[in-house]
Formats: sequence, C-alpha cells, structure tokens
Amino acid sequence: MRNLAFYLFTFFFISALSSQELKSPDENLKMNFSVSGDGTPTYELSYKGKIVMKPSKLGFEIKDKESLIENFEIVSFAQTTFDETWSPVWGEVKAIRNYYNELFVSLNQKTTARKLNIRFRLYNDGLGFRYEFPEQNNFIYFVIKEEKTQFAVSGDHIAFWIPGDYDSQEYKYTKSNLSKVHHLLRNAVEKNASQYVFSDTGLQTPLMLKSVDGLYINIHEAALIDYPCLSLDLDDKNFILSSHLTPDAKGDKGYIQAPFNTPWRTIIVSDDAREILASKLVLNLNEPCKIKDTSWIKPSKFVGVWWEMINGMSSWSYTNLPSVKIGETDYSQTKPNGKHGANNENVKKYIDFAAKHGFDQVLAEGWNIGWEDWFGKSKEYVFDFLTPYPDFDVKALNSYAKEKGVKLIMHHETSSSVINYERHMDKAYQFMIDNGYSAVKSGYVGNIIPRGEYHYGQLMVNHYLYAVKKAAEFKIMVDAHEAVHPTGLQRTYPNLLAQESARGTEYDAMTDNNPDHTTILPFTRLIGGPMDYTPGIFQMDLSVYNPLNKNKVSSTLARQLALYVTMYSPLQMAADYPETYEKFLDAFQFIKDVAVDWDDTKILEAEPGDYISIARKAKGTNNWFVGCTVDENGYRSKFKFDFLDESRVYIATIYSDAKSANYKTNPQAYEIRKFVVTNKSKFSQQCAPGGGYAISIIEADKIQIKSLKK
Amino acid sequence: MRNLAFYLFTFFFISALSSQELKSPDENLKMNFSVSGDGTPTYELSYKGKIVMKPSKLGFEIKDKESLIENFEIVSFAQTTFDETWSPVWGEVKAIRNYYNELFVSLNQKTTARKLNIRFRLYNDGLGFRYEFPEQNNFIYFVIKEEKTQFAVSGDHIAFWIPGDYDSQEYKYTKSNLSKVHHLLRNAVEKNASQYVFSDTGLQTPLMLKSVDGLYINIHEAALIDYPCLSLDLDDKNFILSSHLTPDAKGDKGYIQAPFNTPWRTIIVSDDAREILASKLVLNLNEPCKIKDTSWIKPSKFVGVWWEMINGMSSWSYTNLPSVKIGETDYSQTKPNGKHGANNENVKKYIDFAAKHGFDQVLAEGWNIGWEDWFGKSKEYVFDFLTPYPDFDVKALNSYAKEKGVKLIMHHETSSSVINYERHMDKAYQFMIDNGYSAVKSGYVGNIIPRGEYHYGQLMVNHYLYAVKKAAEFKIMVDAHEAVHPTGLQRTYPNLLAQESARGTEYDAMTDNNPDHTTILPFTRLIGGPMDYTPGIFQMDLSVYNPLNKNKVSSTLARQLALYVTMYSPLQMAADYPETYEKFLDAFQFIKDVAVDWDDTKILEAEPGDYISIARKAKGTNNWFVGCTVDENGYRSKFKFDFLDESRVYIATIYSDAKSANYKTNPQAYEIRKFVVTNKSKFSQQCAPGGGYAISIIEADKIQIKSLKK
Repeated sequence: MRNLAFYLFTFFFISALSSQELKSPDENLKMNFSVSGDGTPTYELSYKGKIVMKPSKLGFEIKDKESLIENFEIVSFAQTTFDETWSPVWGEVKAIRNYYNELFVSLNQKTTARKLNIRFRLYNDGLGFRYEFPEQNNFIYFVIKEEKTQFAVSGDHIAFWIPGDYDSQEYKYTKSNLSKVHHLLRNAVEKNASQYVFSDTGLQTPLMLKSVDGLYINIHEAALIDYPCLSLDLDDKNFILSSHLTPDAKGDKGYIQAPFNTPWRTIIVSDDAREILASKLVLNLNEPCKIKDTSWIKPSKFVGVWWEMINGMSSWSYTNLPSVKIGETDYSQTKPNGKHGANNENVKKYIDFAAKHGFDQVLAEGWNIGWEDWFGKSKEYVFDFLTPYPDFDVKALNSYAKEKGVKLIMHHETSSSVINYERHMDKAYQFMIDNGYSAVKSGYVGNIIPRGEYHYGQLMVNHYLYAVKKAAEFKIMVDAHEAVHPTGLQRTYPNLLAQESARGTEYDAMTDNNPDHTTILPFTRLIGGPMDYTPGIFQMDLSVYNPLNKNKVSSTLARQLALYVTMYSPLQMAADYPETYEKFLDAFQFIKDVAVDWDDTKILEAEPGDYISIARKAKGTNNWFVGCTVDENGYRSKFKFDFLDESRVYIATIYSDAKSANYKTNPQAYEIRKFVVTNKSKFSQQCAPGGGYAISIIEADKIQIKSLKK
Repeated sequence: MRNLAFYLFTFFFISALSSQELKSPDENLKMNFSVSGDGTPTYELSYKGKIVMKPSKLGFEIKDKESLIENFEIVSFAQTTFDETWSPVWGEVKAIRNYYNELFVSLNQKTTARKLNIRFRLYNDGLGFRYEFPEQNNFIYFVIKEEKTQFAVSGDHIAFWIPGDYDSQEYKYTKSNLSKVHHLLRNAVEKNASQYVFSDTGLQTPLMLKSVDGLYINIHEAALIDYPCLSLDLDDKNFILSSHLTPDAKGDKGYIQAPFNTPWRTIIVSDDAREILASKLVLNLNEPCKIKDTSWIKPSKFVGVWWEMINGMSSWSYTNLPSVKIGETDYSQTKPNGKHGANNENVKKYIDFAAKHGFDQVLAEGWNIGWEDWFGKSKEYVFDFLTPYPDFDVKALNSYAKEKGVKLIMHHETSSSVINYERHMDKAYQFMIDNGYSAVKSGYVGNIIPRGEYHYGQLMVNHYLYAVKKAAEFKIMVDAHEAVHPTGLQRTYPNLLAQESARGTEYDAMTDNNPDHTTILPFTRLIGGPMDYTPGIFQMDLSVYNPLNKNKVSSTLARQLALYVTMYSPLQMAADYPETYEKFLDAFQFIKDVAVDWDDTKILEAEPGDYISIARKAKGTNNWFVGCTVDENGYRSKFKFDFLDESRVYIATIYSDAKSANYKTNPQAYEIRKFVVTNKSKFSQQCAPGGGYAISIIEADKIQIKSLKK
C-alpha cells in the first residue's frame, strides 16, 4: 500500500509538472498549458466548454543556435490573481478593471540548459500570454529566425482579414472562410505606395474570427516594443495560424538581449460580439502610464486643409517643379502653381470656421517645402520639417489661430525617410513648441529608408516609439499615419492619441471603400487602439468637386455622423469642406456636439461586417451620444435607453437616414427628429444600406422636467 | 574644290566632335577623350609618351532603365585653364597651387535623349574626372546598379593592394603583380569584426601601382559625398580595373537625384615616386573650406589611456558583467573588475604626463557605461555617450586638465550602431562643449546597424559627413576610426582632422604588422588624407607588459620617431605608456619637439614598399623635421639639406638606429647625435631592417652663428 501511495503521489506530481490549468475569474475561459512528449510547450483554450484553440505549440527558431521548440521540461509554475482598477488619461470609459488569473511557467530546455518562461493571463474577456527570456549567462544575445506560436483554431471559421504585409494595412477587408483565403488573397491586394505581401495565406492582426459554433475570437498582440510586428500565416489544411514576424533587411526577425519580454499575444473570446468591442484586454496588458504630468494631453476635434488635396482640388506642393532640393531650391524665385492648398488665406478660412463652430485645431498639410517630389522617388533628404512655403506664414497663422482660440496641427510627412526624420526631429519638435503647436500628424508614405527595412520591422517599431517618447519630452501629442498597427501602447504613452494604420476615409476619394468597412474596423484595427478615420464627409459624389473624380463615398450622411461614436478616437477630424458643412448646418450640429472623451461606453448591438451601435457618455457630463453603422443590406437597429440615468430626462436628437436613403443612390437623404427620452425609453430605427444614425442625448434642465410632469 | 573643302571641314568637325585631347600644363600628361563606334565614352592617358591608361570605358548601369554605356554622341566640349593658389587651414604645406587644364564634355545618349557630362581636369601630377548628371526632366531620380569606369592599365604592373571589402580596410598590404592577385587574395584576408570581401580580384583604393615601364600610378577618388565608396575589380586577363561600388542592403549602388556630380576618379602619375607623395591632386579637387571661422581648429599631440587596453593590461569596461542595459544597469551596485583603465587616478596620471611634456590632449577610452558587451553582439542601444562609469569624474577630470593646460579627448565608440549614435549625437556634442572637450575620436567597430548596410555604402558615407558637419556646428574636431577611406574632404571640412581607416599600430599588439607597412601606407591610405596611426611605441616586446601577449611591434625605436614625420597627420598620438617614455626620455624628446602642422614639405626619397624619407618645415618657424622609414631589408638613406634656408645655421639632432639595430632582434638600439648643419650639408645614414631615423633641425641663435663664423 505504501508503494501504491508513493506511485500515486509521483503520478500526480509528474502530472502537475507536465500540465497546468488556468481559469478566468468567471471560469468561462479555461486554458491548459502542457509540455508534450517531445518537450514542446503547448497551450489550449476553451470558452464555456467550446474549443477556442486546440493544442497549439509555442517556441522560437533561433539563428545559428538550437531552436527553442522542443526538449523542454517544466521547472516550476506559479498561479496568482490580480485585481486592480485604473483610470486612463483619456478613453472610452473612466475606469478599467484589470482582473485576471495568471499562470507563470518556468521551463528548462534539457538539451541546452536554457530557461524560457511563459506568462499567461486569463481574463474574463480573453487570454494574453508572452514569452520571457530570463537573465542567464548562456543565452543573452540571440537572433530570432521565426517565432513559432500557433493558434490552432477548431475549424473553418469565418474570418475578417486583410493580406499579411510587411508595409501596408490599407486594404479592404475580406470576409471569408479560412479555407478560402488562399484563393482570394492575391485579388485582395490593391496597389500601394509601399507593400510586401509575404504569402498567399498570410493575414494581419487584429484578426477577427467567427467560429463555426458561434464564438467570436480575436487574435492580436499587446505592448509591441523593440520587436518585430506580428502577422499570421495560415495552414489551411489544419486551420492552424502561426506567428509570422516582420524581417529586417537581411531576413532576421528580432535581435534580442535577455532579459527580455516579448509582446503579449492576445486572444479575445466571447459568444457575444459586443464583448469583443467592449474588451479592455489589450490595454490591460500594457504598462501603466509613464508620463508624470499628463495635463497637456487633450482630446480634440479638428478640421483642415487636406480633403481638397485628396480630391485633387489643390496641391500639397507650392510649385510644379519636377524636383527640388531642400536648402538649394530658392522658392522665392520659383513660379507658384496657384493651387497650393496650405496658403495663408485658405488656412485662415479654416481657422475662422473652426473658431465659429467650436473646433480645437486646424490641420494644414503641405505647409512646408519639399512636396514637389515627395512621393515615389525614394528621396532621402525629402523634407526638413522647418521651412514653410512662401505663402504659409507660420508665425502669423499661429498668432491668428491663438487669437481665435484655435491651434494649428503640425504635419510631419516623412516619406518614410526615417534617418532624415530623426536627424530633424528635435529641431522640428522645438519649432512646434516655439510656434504654438501641440500636436503633430506624422506620415510614413512609401518604402522605408534605410532601404530594405519594412514599416513593421523591429527597426521601425523602435522608431515610432522613439518619436512618441521624444514628443512627450516636448509635451507634444502624436497622430501617426502608416505606422505599425497599434497594440495598446497609448496606455503607457497617452500622448500617442491616435494612428491611421488602416484604410481610412481618403480611400473613399482615391478609389473606394466597402459600405461595410466601418462595421469591420472596430473588430479589427481598433482592437489595438484609436483610429484617426477622418470621417464627416457630407458630399458623397466627389465629381461635384472634381469632375475627373468618379469616386463616391460609400456611406450615407447619417452614417458619417455615427462614425464619431463608433470609430473611437480622442482625435477626430471633420474632414469635409467648410462650404459643404455650411449647406448642412443642421446635420453638422451633431459633429459640433459630439464629445471625444468618455466616462462610459455601452456596446448596444454588434455583428462584424453587419452592424455596430454604440452609446457613450461624454466625460464629466450626463450626456450620451449614440452611433450606428450598418452594411450594404441596411439594418433595423433596436435598443433600450436603460443606460441613461433613472432620475433624469433627456432630449435626444436623432440624425437618421431618410426612408429613401441609400449609400449608392441617395446618400444625402437624412432626417433630424427630437424626442424626450428617459431610461425607460426604447429605440427602433431602420438604417439604409451603407447607412446608420447618430443621436445626441442631452440632459434636460429641471424646469423642463417639472413642466413635463405637469 | 569647294566640295573637298566642305568634306575636309566636316571631317575635322566630326573628328573634333568624336575625340578631344587634353594636356597637363607642362604637357607631360596627355589625355584623350573619345566616343567609340558604338557610342561608348572612352578616355586614355599617357605620361611622357608612355601609356598610363589604354582606352578605358566610362558609364553606368542603371536600375530598371537603359544603361548609360553606349549610344552616346558628343554634343559639345569646352577647354579651360584654372590657376589659383590656396591655403589650407592646416596641412603639409602652407600654400597649394591648383593649376589644371580642364575638358568639359557634354554627351547625349541618342537612344534615350539623356544628357551626361564628364569633366576632366589634367594637372601636372595627374588626372581627375567626374560624371555630372545635369538637370533634365527625363532623368532626375535613378538608381545606379554599377558604375562602369575602367582603368585599363598597360600591363601586369606591380600593385600594393588590400582586398576589396565593403566593411574593412584593416589588412596588411600585399605587393604583387596584378596577375597574382587572384591567387593571393583569399590568404590576404585576415579575420575582422566586420568584413565583406566581394571578389577574388577586388581591390581597395587608393591603389598604388608601379608599371612595367617604371611609372608610378595611383588610383583613388576625391570628394566622396552622397555616393557609395569606390573599389576596383580586376580583370586579370586584360589588366583592366573596373569601378565596383559598395551596395546598400538591397544590392543597389547609389540613389541619385540630378543634378548631381559623382566623386572625382583620380589617377596620380609620375616617373618619380616622390611626386606621388607630394601630389595635391585629391585636395585640389575638393571644394574649398566651408567653415567660416576656423580659429577653433587646432592640430595637436596627445597621449592617452588606450595602449594598455589594446595590450590587455586593463579593460575598457568597469565590470565583468556578461551584459548590461544602458539606463537599467545600476553601476553603483555592480562589482568593479579592478582593471578599468579610464579611472580618475590613471587619467590624472596621463594629464600630469601630458602637462609635463607639452602634450595638448589626453584620450580616455572606456570612460562611459556600456563597454561590458560592446563588441560582437550587434547591440543596438550600446552606448549613450553621456554617462561615465562611477570611477570617471567628468567634471573633476576636465577641471584638473584645464588647470594643467591640457584637454581631454572625447571618445565615441559607436559599435557601428549608427541610428543610436545619431539619436544621441546632439546631446553628446553638447556634453563635450559643456565639459571642456574640443575633439572626439569616433569608432565604428562591428557590423553596421541598420543591419545589412556596409561601412562604405552611401548611407554610411552620408552618416560620417553628417557627424563631421554637426561637429563643426559645435566647434568640435573629429578623428574618425573605421570610417570610409578619406578622399580629401578635410579641405572642405577641416574639423575632420584625421581618420584611421587602415591597419594601424594597434595591430602590432593584436597580431602583427609587416615591417614595410609604413613604407606603403603613404602611397595608399594617406593619399586620401591624414592617418591617426598612433605611433611612438618604444617597447616592442609586448610580453614585457602582458606575458600572454607574444606579439612584437615590427619596428625599431628610431623608426617610431620617424613616423611622426612620414605618417602625416595634424593629430598625433604618443601611444606608449608614460613609464616607458620615462625610460627613454632622450628619444622621447623628438616626439615632444616634432610639430604637427607645416609650412612646407619635401619628399626626399621614396619607393613604395622600400623606403620613404620626408622633410617638413614647422609652421611659423624656420625649423625642420625629417623622418625616414624603411622595410625589412634596411636602407642607406642619403639626402642634401639644400631645403634649409641659405642664411641660417641649424642644430640637427639625429635619432637613428644603432649599427646593431634590427626590428626583430634588437629594436630598441638607437643613437642620438647632434650636428651643426647648413643648407650645404649632406646626410647619409644606414637604417636597420624595419628601421629609420628622425631628425629635428632647429634654427640656431645668431650668437651661435657668430661664434661659428669666428
């Protein structure tokens, strides 16, 4: 009997050291970590009994050394629980609960005596895990050939995807089964100024999946620091997604010095699509705010000199010279082309408009010398970020703006000439401070210089963060376009207000966007962070401006208003022309009223690719704003106002598609109605194809309540 | 007759438009430019009737476009003469005559209607030519696949060469016929921290040749700006050397925006080897000084904490930690290894020594955090250039130095992590100014980051110049090690005092140098600019310091003194230990006396690989210094003092090899003799194998002259 007891004990002991279970606080999610027979670290995940991830391998291929793939044994493990509520500097909600059960596993690779740790955090809304290379003398500096993290999904799920690419995210989303990716991918690749599609089965993250058994699963990464960006390569026989990192110019995928933690790999899970949008997993996995004084970080709304250039009505450049040389071309001797958008008169017009309608800032693109040959030339010394064109008076315009209570937004298009940008950055940021700017929109259009590097490689990941950290030293906010996909770093560096890093409104003018595009983006791109989507287009038929432009914006006007709520960002542009807004001042009122910073958010309805409706409570007020965006089929949206305060009465102004509205044929047909609502009220609204609605819900005064009760 | 006259005229006209002759001012050199039958631009060169270059092609392979190789016609040409004398800020001579005949040829490529200009300048000492891409709308931005400049030498010349390499020049020179390069090259490749040998017949420039018919020919480039570095690839069947540029990470060889001028390709020619060393061709082809106020640029001599690390007696690093992280490792908590060279006590010792013996500056390598893992790790954030180790008190040491009339030299080893260096550069330069430094020795040991780039590619060429130009803004002088070979840019940016960029004295300690090394370097490496060779080693048997080091310095002590004259540099180090110099104070006196800036230079004797003796007149004085360095065969040097002033009398102190001296067996045997000399005196001296001599010739006082005459 003693022997049996001994063997039973040993059996349990060995079992304990070869697998570990972790549950989420509400126990809906269960993760199991184990080391297989050949010593391969493996995890699997289930949600309410349904498989989310089948046994999926973990590890790394290492350059010129034995890989970290097999021959592991568990040395030790520890389970802990963490529960803390924190407040973001700005956000969708005032307070975020960071509540998880954690499993920390320490592994030893028997063949090399190298240690590898993996940390799993299981939240109610999903799993995050990262690799941790501890300090150890026999494994300090190494180069990753490929990360070997698997996401072995349970079947031929529906996916909302864009092609895996080392340089561009500006693709339309495709909705298809995973098995169809291989057939559809090449056709999904639209030409871009800089792109590198690495595989016929490569996919970018955040990747949104809807499983065959009704689970919503989102795969992404959090806290991408000093490491190349994650993409996924799909094995469509076995439905295994494998990590595929972005290489450097030589094909290597990460230069590491231990101790080092990789970014978190994140899997958000729910049987309710709304919970995917509500998830705070990515933010929770990021480090707390590192900026001591955040008083200078301010969400805002802006207008600007931009849409006119996108539409070919004016030019970024001052002349039509075929080429220029910074510091050599004497612009006082050149012939202006008469179409330069960012000129004193035009910018003042925007400043006046912003002041009149309560916008905080005005963006002016094309303010600086060098735009004549900025694009497609792989030009190294392309901009100096300091010298304005002759018709852009920096001091005068900033002074004028200041008088009117408005600021200008700086523009740093880098043309991806990154060494050049870094050489000028300190002076360029100081120039901003000296001239009254507090925010910069940066851009990385074109192939990266140093040539051979990619937008999403380790070098560029480091650069984007370098630019943000340095901006914080100068108390400057950043809106980065064409940068690597966001991964929640805005928690740590909240001066990173927004990014583009996806296909935005400009594509409505340059080619087209799908009418369901904005019903997908929050499930994909926005999982990592806010998007500067630049909505608010009221004139859909762009040939009205430029007869040569046959493109149309695939949206109704009412849906454009909704986007200020559904496309979360602390930085929002009203992108259309002042003249156009002045024709629709009643609808424009919503954009003027909508907040950009929130105390609370309710996801009312959501289905990726179909519809999204969201309600948000404006920070420091009792007011709410609701937005709904729907696909080409239209949708009848229904919700209850039960999120409103019981004791209050509100005036709801509803901006909705007219009955006859249609994004293709009748996009500008909208109606505006006012209702008195309480938390007992209900709402039902038919949205047009490619349409939606927006609602401002403003707390009514008490006098009005009294009169109501009478 | 009229028809005949017409045809004769046309014939001459066509001849005139298909070939052009250019002569040097003294008519010894004749260059002929022509366009061959298929439209290939070609040049040839002769010296006193002997062929220097047989017909040699010119042109470019262009990426993704028709190449610039054939189908050219001459559109026009112009011949001019230029004659101007200019003064360098510092140099071997006070005044330099820039006197040449120039041929400017304008070509049109018939198949593409693209223009290409070539400018030839023919001096008495050689030819320089460069390509000029003019402004034209159909050819602005393009990428060079390869430059196709030929140097078709007339036979199997003797060459003094190092293997062509994109990353290292630190090889021993091989002297061989061109036909033997192919057999010898691989064996000539010694291992280096960063190297890329591109061909079995690749050669670096400056390349020194001695032709089968006794001509000395040197091939190099001048004014290397925004272009990749020139190497040569040898066709050893036909003895044609072809230009081979350094590629970027993708294999491209130069991103160009016209209008643009390439660097000058230079061919120095003489039948007298001394005229090669005396040539000012490379400087003359560079742009005049661009720095307005040069009063802060000062040649100097220095000592420093360096040789002890090279010899393994002390370490650059403060601890023996296997790795550190800048900004994270707390050095106040670490255990010092007790062998850190750049500590307060040691540096003060060097300051005292410098002050006592009249040296201007003290170098301290290893002053800053990060040296524990600086080498061979491809570590990106390797140094911050700001934070000293705990035992190096920046303020106190600079203060102490200042009291003693000495300055510290800053050290910026970058480990080739170039983006990191540029990120810190402004602050690092400001730190220097704030703390009393005025000169920096920079280094680029290891493979370049951005990874995939090479030390001699266009990106790095731009970086080195960026560092020099920015240094000039801060009034800082630069001594760049491991940088691209110099090409005379020190005329334009005279704060670029010196470079290493070749195999220097450190190799005597780390492996070995050939005894004839310093009889070759002035014919090769120094053609482009001064070298920080760091001579002055008095203890040749290094096992005396470190029993583990069996290496010996391949030189006699007397030759070490000579190097201060023969290895021209405005920045010279006395590299050995103070304790060693104190044992040989009589010999050390020469190093104390020798100047570093000159009004005049006479090349007395020269034969590449065999011997060099040079006399130089110290700036602003009537004093002269002579140095002679010889190869392993020894040499009897003879010269006349006829360069001395007729009306003066001088005391010559001669430091020469003792009769028994030999670099291998008896290197420290020297003798010192004093003579009274006038310009009628003659000199004859046997130099030992690997030996030489140094002479200081100091003007005697008039009283002494009177007593002489009596």
